[in-house]
Amino acid sequence: MDEMTKVAVDAMGGDNAPAEIVKGAIEAVNQNSKIKVYLVGKQNVINDVLSQHTYNKERIEVVNAEEVIDTAEPPVMAIRKKKDSSIVVALNLVKNNECDAFVSAGSSGAVLVGGQLIVGRIKGIERPPLAPLIPTETGCSLLIDCGANVDARPSHLVQFAKMGSVYMESVMGIPNPKVAIVNIGAEEEKGNALVKDTFPLLKNCPDIHFIGSIEARDIPTGYADVIVCEAFAGNIILKLYEGVGATLIKKVKAGMMTSLRSKIGALLVKPALKKTLKGFSLEEYGGAPLLGLNGLVVKTHGSSTANEIKNSILQCVTFKEQKINQKIKEKVILSDS
Amino acid sequence: MDEMTKVAVDAMGGDNAPAEIVKGAIEAVNQNSKIKVYLVGKQNVINDVLSQHTYNKERIEVVNAEEVIDTAEPPVMAIRKKKDSSIVVALNLVKNNECDAFVSAGSSGAVLVGGQLIVGRIKGIERPPLAPLIPTETGCSLLIDCGANVDARPSHLVQFAKMGSVYMESVMGIPNPKVAIVNIGAEEEKGNALVKDTFPLLKNCPDIHFIGSIEARDIPTGYADVIVCEAFAGNIILKLYEGVGATLIKKVKAGMMTSLRSKIGALLVKPALKKTLKGFSLEEYGGAPLLGLNGLVVKTHGSSTANEIKNSILQCVTFKEQKINQKIKEKVILSDS
Repeated sequence: MDEMTKVAVDAMGGDNAPAEIVKGAIEAVNQNSKIKVYLVGKQNVINDVLSQHTYNKERIEVVNAEEVIDTAEPPVMAIRKKKDSSIVVALNLVKNNECDAFVSAGSSGAVLVGGQLIVGRIKGIERPPLAPLIPTETGCSLLIDCGANVDARPSHLVQFAKMGSVYMESVMGIPNPKVAIVNIGAEEEKGNALVKDTFPLLKNCPDIHFIGSIEARDIPTGYADVIVCEAFAGNIILKLYEGVGATLIKKVKAGMMTSLRSKIGALLVKPALKKTLKGFSLEEYGGAPLLGLNGLVVKTHGSSTANEIKNSILQCVTFKEQKINQKIKEKVILSDS
Repeated sequence: MDEMTKVAVDAMGGDNAPAEIVKGAIEAVNQNSKIKVYLVGKQNVINDVLSQHTYNKERIEVVNAEEVIDTAEPPVMAIRKKKDSSIVVALNLVKNNECDAFVSAGSSGAVLVGGQLIVGRIKGIERPPLAPLIPTETGCSLLIDCGANVDARPSHLVQFAKMGSVYMESVMGIPNPKVAIVNIGAEEEKGNALVKDTFPLLKNCPDIHFIGSIEARDIPTGYADVIVCEAFAGNIILKLYEGVGATLIKKVKAGMMTSLRSKIGALLVKPALKKTLKGFSLEEYGGAPLLGLNGLVVKTHGSSTANEIKNSILQCVTFKEQKINQKIKEKVILSDS
């Protein structure tokens, strides 16, 4: 049983809960025999959905939680008051080592705040960053931090760079990952106060492969593996990635419908195009881990379907097997002192 | 002659100088009879290019400037030392009221610094923002500020909102333009320190139509007409717009080349697609004005071709005819006091 990765999944979180969440959990245990999923939420509701599927009953368990935290609720208050919510109950499973990881498509704020308050930071980690993988021309990069804690300090960004390097090397298998800091120009003297103060610290950090500044224009090319920024900037990057992508694809589709000629062409290119664009979708990479906690907390899109939930659960296995938290302790904390 | 809009154009600036710059200038005067262009730069070089075209000699004049400011040069130093550079000579034409406007595809830093140092700010304007138009699903929005001065204060952002409103109403003809501040969530209590301090000021500002926060995801939809942000964030937004767009179009093209079927389809959809995507190109909107100066300074892309130079010159006419600077004085400065 020790080899098993035990994942608590928020069955009530996200636009497509509980149906797609339950489906994703079933797909994950079917795909990997080393996973056990704990579906947390309203027992009756979850059982109703489960009864519509055939699944391995030994590897999917339901944990009852009667409350649900809404995305509109102020996170700190919600975590404190709703002790019997799916998010709080699931986070306590991680805190008490009954689970290795927690996956939620629910309220970002509540997951981020709850992760810090309930699971807690690894001793020495100043701030846990939310670090999604974003698609690039050559594969994917880790964008760190897109979290809820804005106005970071330089020392936070240095820890982000180190944790991001550990993640990309151990989970994504990229040796000596290239680290860059988001900036408004390539030169060292450019940037805002935070970037100017952080740049020399990263430059002199022996544990990472720092390649300097990255302009936003170059992020989609895959120029860097770990893209370090403060959460306000990271949030803009992540959401604009989605926004520009969605608008352009809408434009491409509309463009193809403008004439009979282009409509026929559209029918012919559709399958190939769909396949290529799938590789550039944020959903393909599962959720974003909140790094630096005593356990793994993964936040997936509110709009997650079964596929993204499945991918998010699967990534928890690599995270556990690669002993990421042990490596963070060794490479981020010990190298600091 | 008074109706003429006199535009100084940096013939030496940008990747495609001088050929495309000169060509764009000729196209602009051909298209609008109220424009006179002063091509500033090395006389011999410019005359060489001009001799390859037929053009209206009364409305294109060459102004000699022997030096060129390179994009890699530190801007402040370059503006101070290179008195005979195309940028400095052209900016002095605007300062001395010999020209109404200056258009350059050269060093962004030098144009921004030079605009402030030589042409100077309108009295009462704290900081001149660089404000490009960006394409959206429904038309275009003004992104203000993408300039060189990062770490803005709340009072700067309020002036940006007012100047942006004047521009969108008078130049783009959008009545009562919707103003939003870039934020990481829709709620008023979200954001970094700058946004939290600025939000109530914008909310209580009687001269603008403030609609609250805008998340980066919604920028491409055209949700707001004037998108207010500090320059570091603005620079990320502008450059990521370009970057994600370029990568996605590359992906679409590659996707279409994966099979014989899709290749045939590609031939059929190409013309329609080209037309649609052209409408979503940053280049279609000409350059970005640096607002709040005693004259108009327009920065266009370093990679500008004749078409963007032409559009940038043409927008100077509207700017002059609509008396934008007079309106900025009335609506931004006077309403402050």
